[in-house]
Amino acid sequence: MIGARFSLYPMGDDFVPIILKAVQALNAYPLEQETDDISTFLSGEENALFAALEAAFARAIQSDRHVVMNLTLSRGCPGEPGEDVCDPAPTVSQLAGGPSAADATHPHIACQFSLYPMGTHSYMETIYAQIKRAQQNRAVSTVPQHFCTRLEGPLPAVMAQLREAFDHAAETTPHVVIHATLSANSPTGA
Amino acid sequence: MIGARFSLYPMGDDFVPIILKAVQALNAYPLEQETDDISTFLSGEENALFAALEAAFARAIQSDRHVVMNLTLSRGCPGEPGEDVCDPAPTVSQLAGGPSAADATHPHIACQFSLYPMGTHSYMETIYAQIKRAQQNRAVSTVPQHFCTRLEGPLPAVMAQLREAFDHAAETTPHVVIHATLSANSPTGA
Repeated sequence: MIGARFSLYPMGDDFVPIILKAVQALNAYPLEQETDDISTFLSGEENALFAALEAAFARAIQSDRHVVMNLTLSRGCPGEPGEDVCDPAPTVSQLAGGPSAADATHPHIACQFSLYPMGTHSYMETIYAQIKRAQQNRAVSTVPQHFCTRLEGPLPAVMAQLREAFDHAAETTPHVVIHATLSANSPTGA
Repeated sequence: MIGARFSLYPMGDDFVPIILKAVQALNAYPLEQETDDISTFLSGEENALFAALEAAFARAIQSDRHVVMNLTLSRGCPGEPGEDVCDPAPTVSQLAGGPSAADATHPHIACQFSLYPMGTHSYMETIYAQIKRAQQNRAVSTVPQHFCTRLEGPLPAVMAQLREAFDHAAETTPHVVIHATLSANSPTGA
C-alpha cells in the first residue's frame, strides 16, 4: 500500500479558504481520502498520488501567501492493509511540458526531507545513496543538514526528486517512509 | 546526540512576529541552535530540549492564532556527531505544578506522531508497544491512524507522552526518530 498524509499551512488570515480550495484539487484523482482537523490521508496508485499532492500544493501557492506543506509518504507499511502498486509514468507537471517548461513557469520552493528505510540494518547506506543521487540531479540544489536533506528548485523538480528517493529506496527495503517540509513564498527567502 | 528540528506555523497575517517571539523563548535554554528559512535545529541535553520545545510552542499559542508545530525528534543518529545524554528529570511544565495544574491552565492540543526505530527488524513491535503505552496514559486520548497515532490533551501531557515514546523506544534500538505535528486553536476543533 502506498499513501501519504499531508497538511497545508498558509500563513495568513485567509488560511481556511486557501486550504479548502487546495484540498478540492484532490477530487480530480482516484484516491482514497480522509481529511481531519490536522491532516489529509491519501492512498492509491502512485502516479495519481504524486500528481494530487503537487496539484494541491501548487493551488495553495497561487495565493501568494507563504505556504508550507508538511508531507509524509509511506509505502509497504506492514501495519497497513493492501498492496503496493507502482507503475512509473509521467506526473501532471511532466505531462504539462516537461522539466524545462516547468522550470520557467513553476514557483521555486525550498524543502527539507528525511528518508526512513525501515526494518533493515543497512538503512544508512540507503539514505546516503539517495542523498548522493539528489546531489547529482541538476534540476535541484541539494544540501545535507542535521536530520534532513535540503532541496531547492521548481516544485515539479523537487517533487520528482522526492519520488526518486521514495522509489529507489524501496529497491533495498520494502517499507519506506519520507517526511518532507515544502516551503513557498517565504519572507525569509530561500 | 539528541536533537530536534521544528517549525511553527501561525495561521495569520502576523505570523512573523509570532514566530520570532516564540523562537526567542529558546534563548533561556543551553542548546545549540540554528535557524534557517524552513526550521530550527536544536541539540543538547534532553530535559532542556523538551522544555525549550514546549516553551516555544506555548508562547506561539498565546497568540490565540491557529498554530501548528512540526517537530522532528532524533537520538542516536549514526550520521551525527556527539553522544547521547539522558537524565530524566522534571520538565518546565512539571516544575510549574505537575500534570493536574497543567490540565487546568494549559491549552488542549491535538497531535499526530510517528515513531521510527531505525536499524532493527523488530521495529513494528517497538512501535506497537509505544502505542499501547500511550493508550494506557489517562492524561491523553490516543487513537491509531494511518501512518501515525493521534494524541489529544493538555500540551504538557502530550509532550510528556512523546518523550515517553522517544525514551522507551531507545531501550531496544539506539537510533530513534519521532515526527510529530502539534495543532492548537484549530477552527475545525479537535
